[in-house]
Amino acid sequence: MATNIDGKAIAALVRSEVKEEVAALKEKCGKSPGLAVVLVGERVDSATYVRSKKKACDECGIEVTDVKLPGDASEEQIKDAVRELNNNPAIHGILVQLPLPDGVNEKSVLELISVEKDVDGFDPINVGLLAIKDREPFFTACTPTGCMELLKRSGVETKGKRAVVIGRSGIVGIPMAMLLNNADATVTICHSKTQDIGSVVREADIVVAAIGRANFVKGEWLKKGAVVIDVGINSVDDPTAKRGYRLCGDCDYNSCKEVASQITPVPGGVGPMTIAILMQNTLTALKRTL
Amino acid sequence: MATNIDGKAIAALVRSEVKEEVAALKEKCGKSPGLAVVLVGERVDSATYVRSKKKACDECGIEVTDVKLPGDASEEQIKDAVRELNNNPAIHGILVQLPLPDGVNEKSVLELISVEKDVDGFDPINVGLLAIKDREPFFTACTPTGCMELLKRSGVETKGKRAVVIGRSGIVGIPMAMLLNNADATVTICHSKTQDIGSVVREADIVVAAIGRANFVKGEWLKKGAVVIDVGINSVDDPTAKRGYRLCGDCDYNSCKEVASQITPVPGGVGPMTIAILMQNTLTALKRTL
Ligand SMILES: NC(=O)C1=CN([C@@H]2O[C@H](COP(=O)(O)OP(=O)(O)OC[C@H]3O[C@@H](n4cnc5c(N)ncnc54)[C@H](OP(=O)(O)O)[C@@H]3O)[C@@H](O)[C@H]2O)C=CC1
Ligand SMILES: NC(=O)C1=CN([C@@H]2O[C@H](COP(=O)(O)OP(=O)(O)OC[C@H]3O[C@@H](n4cnc5c(N)ncnc54)[C@H](OP(=O)(O)O)[C@@H]3O)[C@@H](O)[C@H]2O)C=CC1
Repeated sequence: MATNIDGKAIAALVRSEVKEEVAALKEKCGKSPGLAVVLVGERVDSATYVRSKKKACDECGIEVTDVKLPGDASEEQIKDAVRELNNNPAIHGILVQLPLPDGVNEKSVLELISVEKDVDGFDPINVGLLAIKDREPFFTACTPTGCMELLKRSGVETKGKRAVVIGRSGIVGIPMAMLLNNADATVTICHSKTQDIGSVVREADIVVAAIGRANFVKGEWLKKGAVVIDVGINSVDDPTAKRGYRLCGDCDYNSCKEVASQITPVPGGVGPMTIAILMQNTLTALKRTL
Repeated sequence: MATNIDGKAIAALVRSEVKEEVAALKEKCGKSPGLAVVLVGERVDSATYVRSKKKACDECGIEVTDVKLPGDASEEQIKDAVRELNNNPAIHGILVQLPLPDGVNEKSVLELISVEKDVDGFDPINVGLLAIKDREPFFTACTPTGCMELLKRSGVETKGKRAVVIGRSGIVGIPMAMLLNNADATVTICHSKTQDIGSVVREADIVVAAIGRANFVKGEWLKKGAVVIDVGINSVDDPTAKRGYRLCGDCDYNSCKEVASQITPVPGGVGPMTIAILMQNTLTALKRTL
């Protein structure tokens, strides 16, 4: 029976470490990290995400600059806002909440964020620097970095171990695979064209699922004692739940728990880590300017 | 018994295709691709490489601009040469022959090459764009791209197949893994910390070895019918050879040939493809400016 990796507790610990360092820096040189959050339009889910990021900033002593643009803002207006933030020395990290309204080219907006302020780590150059083992990215994407932190703080050895990452998106799967490779795991990347995925998963000491399919990974696929990191956030109908749905991961928690040694629950696993790492990255951005 | 993948013949075919297209473009708009080759110092091996690149350019109708700097050129002088080439509209590709003399920071010289002229595909941003599946790099590194071309032209299906790449360098192993992943193979990346590498290789339908260890991969490691791409170029002492040594790959050719379905010999496999792809990339660079 697996033990749970308590992402909520580990994320709180990471935030408290950031808070301490922020306070010490403020004391020492009078500066605080500044995060700009660009929100375009009125999407309820985006507003919710932004709120939780701001809450974490408040907790850590990171100063938030809210940049709100109307849903009909033009691409040029959004870009102008980013340009201004690039030039503002009090802003150390810039976060553009996705998705942007239809008709706005997300890539070209994101590309504009200066690489030193790309606390999301989405810039291709940051992905490239991560992929090249003897180079150092400015930032690595928050979610996979959070997964690495969970492994580290749960005492999971990666060196020489076999890891399987399911999913190959540019913001989760691929950087996750690169981080594990850089940590000396032997990594296999699976995706929708992978055949007999169960037998590939069975080779792994560490399984990371970032697919977006509820309960996809089954306990019977796992090697006995594998560590399971479940990135997925899926909502499934549940008439017994107050909201009519509940959240579940990409792994079938109940069957996986029987075989794994450690597993992240959903919610309360990877989710809280993403924002905690965003706090870390923003602090790092400030430290680089000192 | 495996059939040989004839890299020499395939590379000649690629060059002849480039030659044809270059001639047609010249006819149509009066322009030829221009490749600048920057050679610093007098290393014999570097001079040899540069000579074979120039020979291929001549064959294809690509105009070569030789930039020779003395072995004691300063980093700033080398950088000035690169800057000039960046600004020269007749130059479509820039190649800085490595290694640069001791004391010169190679990374900071290479970083200066504008991404549109980075025909070697070494720029981190090109690696990052390759790693992110829905993005397009300007160029991909010549050697791994050449390996993909060998697979394609030998009728090797990648989609849904298992591939193992041994080696994780930024110029061969990692971009190779990304290219195979983008071609829908399920890729595993091995390196010096991988345990029981033979059993990992046994899972693969396609094995790419880019390690730099003579005859490392043994036939008994292979799955029956696997395709073997041997990137390695190693020289081993051979008193019977005229020069006192001979070249061999990272795979033990004789034992691998017994088990594989197709295999690249060394020399005459991957080697000639690297330069052929350099020709292709330089042509692509010109086409982008039209
Ligand atoms: N905890 C957090 O903070 C975060 C959670 N997430 C969650 O993580 C999950 C993945 O996110 P993201 O990477 O952005 O998603 P994407 O949709 O961008 O990528 C999904 C990946 O899963 C692969 N995939 C889809 N179906 C299958 C299948 N049947 N078998 C094998 N592979 C499959 C796809 O393969 P192919 O490439 O072949 O299409 C693709 O590579 C989502 O549930 C998302 O909500 C994401 C970000 C942050
Ligand atoms: N045909 C051509 O045109 C070209 C050929 N080459 C040849 O390809 C080979 C690789 O080149 P390159 O990528 O630049 O080399 P690097 O030395 O940069 O990388 C070698 C890789 O092999 C891994 N490795 C070393 N020893 C072992 C081992 N015992 N078991 C498993 N993995 C091991 C290393 O692992 P780790 O990261 O853990 O150290 C490293 O990732 C060389 O022989 C080179 O001459 C290269 C470029 C062009």
